[in-house]
Amino acid sequence: MTNEINKNIVKEYLADLQEKIVDALQLVDGENFLIDSWQRKEGGGGTTSILENGNIFERAGIGYSSVTGSKLPKTATDVHPEVQNRKWEAMGVSLVFHPYNPFVPTVHMNVRFFIASKNGEADIWWFGGGIDLTPYYPFEEDVIHFHQSLKNVLDPFDKKLYPKFKKNCDNYFLLKHRNEARGIGGIFFDDFTDNNFEYCFELIKAIGSSLTKIYLPIVQKRKDTKFTNKERDFQLYRRSRYVEFNLLQDRGTLFGIQSKGRVESILMSMPPMVKWSYDWKAKTGSEEEKLYTNFLPPKDWV
Amino acid sequence: MTNEINKNIVKEYLADLQEKIVDALQLVDGENFLIDSWQRKEGGGGTTSILENGNIFERAGIGYSSVTGSKLPKTATDVHPEVQNRKWEAMGVSLVFHPYNPFVPTVHMNVRFFIASKNGEADIWWFGGGIDLTPYYPFEEDVIHFHQSLKNVLDPFDKKLYPKFKKNCDNYFLLKHRNEARGIGGIFFDDFTDNNFEYCFELIKAIGSSLTKIYLPIVQKRKDTKFTNKERDFQLYRRSRYVEFNLLQDRGTLFGIQSKGRVESILMSMPPMVKWSYDWKAKTGSEEEKLYTNFLPPKDWV
Repeated sequence: MTNEINKNIVKEYLADLQEKIVDALQLVDGENFLIDSWQRKEGGGGTTSILENGNIFERAGIGYSSVTGSKLPKTATDVHPEVQNRKWEAMGVSLVFHPYNPFVPTVHMNVRFFIASKNGEADIWWFGGGIDLTPYYPFEEDVIHFHQSLKNVLDPFDKKLYPKFKKNCDNYFLLKHRNEARGIGGIFFDDFTDNNFEYCFELIKAIGSSLTKIYLPIVQKRKDTKFTNKERDFQLYRRSRYVEFNLLQDRGTLFGIQSKGRVESILMSMPPMVKWSYDWKAKTGSEEEKLYTNFLPPKDWV
Repeated sequence: MTNEINKNIVKEYLADLQEKIVDALQLVDGENFLIDSWQRKEGGGGTTSILENGNIFERAGIGYSSVTGSKLPKTATDVHPEVQNRKWEAMGVSLVFHPYNPFVPTVHMNVRFFIASKNGEADIWWFGGGIDLTPYYPFEEDVIHFHQSLKNVLDPFDKKLYPKFKKNCDNYFLLKHRNEARGIGGIFFDDFTDNNFEYCFELIKAIGSSLTKIYLPIVQKRKDTKFTNKERDFQLYRRSRYVEFNLLQDRGTLFGIQSKGRVESILMSMPPMVKWSYDWKAKTGSEEEKLYTNFLPPKDWV
């Protein structure tokens, strides 16, 4: 019975994944995470691990949560009307790492499992997740490495997945009000139920376990790059796009807020310092312009 | 016929109000605003006046706009189902001033006029607006001056207005996800149609013209207060609440974004520099704690 769902092994995997990533980041950064466990009044709880003012990471947050509820918020039922009036359970690991050096990209990963149940009816469940990269001064070889690595993770499951999830990612992380991508994409998927529970769970594990292997080599390569105030300013300015996306569009953030989730854990994705500047435009021929012309418009990297 | 609506005199007043406030701010700050006029593809346009890196104001934006459309976005029809399937016209002046010194409060004002029309049917119209204050290190006398002045503006019209608008303001500027006020309130109203057009317009004019008289004395009094990095940091941290409110809840911002408004003009309300910090708590007995205990919880100030 490979399709029998086992939420406990998903929970165990996710909690362990969080610990492993925390360990790996601490080794690289040299500073320790704050580990903050919490309970949610309406059901469930989680652990938020956060590193602020590290040596490499200005803010790095990894949250594990497993929460339950009796009624889904609007953000969820708008997209999934079939789960209205069902009890639900959502578990996942989410992370956003904001490095200090503008030559090191910001990374985001999320892996999640969702179950909606009703007495006497079969559970509705799916997996979702993704990994995407937000560079400020991108290097083409890093972007290719990032996309190629994600393709290498997915291809053993199904060669159709990478192109599909890559396109999803480009569509999802588009700031609609600016018609501008948040970063250089990656993979994103939701409602994943292909084949059976075991297959889906294996896929989630492959993605979760790939994060440090894909991202940390980029960090190591770029972390000692010298940067100027101008470059730091551009990073702070670009971070405003991250805020705009997360608060205006991100379904996870809005789901968390609307379902009365733990605010500090949801908003650990916010950058530590951000600037807004009126109608800022990159100078023609500048490195900043290259981000807009050569990297943000979605394209095939592998 | 005092109830005959005259949108042109509203437009003229609003455009003139913007200029007057820009002039007053320039005198106080010593730096000039950038005056940026724009047209909107779907109809209408406006002028965004912005001062960045001034002597007193780190970012001060005043926008005048008069825009038209053929279909209202969801944010508007959720609140006003009666205007569905009507052409609309919205005009207003909005401003947010973010001072550099954490002892000078941030101020926000909006005055607006809205008309929805349909062939063969009477126009639906209303005025809306408000003024509210967001201090970081509040002085009780400033807060009382602020509320008393607003009461003085409204009382000649109707003594019931100040208490009603003050309560609206407390309700509106509550960050729901944190159950925390954005600032110390002020007045806020929407759907204002009392008596007739002329009466409503007079009220709008009284509010619009009061802004500099109420706010600039506070600026003059506090602008030279010495401050430390700790106080500046607290201001940057508190500004994150401004961002959260505007992007998650503010109807004007969401209306603008959803109606494909001009992004840079809508987001001129964003603070110039902002910090997020995980689960920050004020020290017991500190000045920062007083903001939370003595000023943010709504109370009667006059």
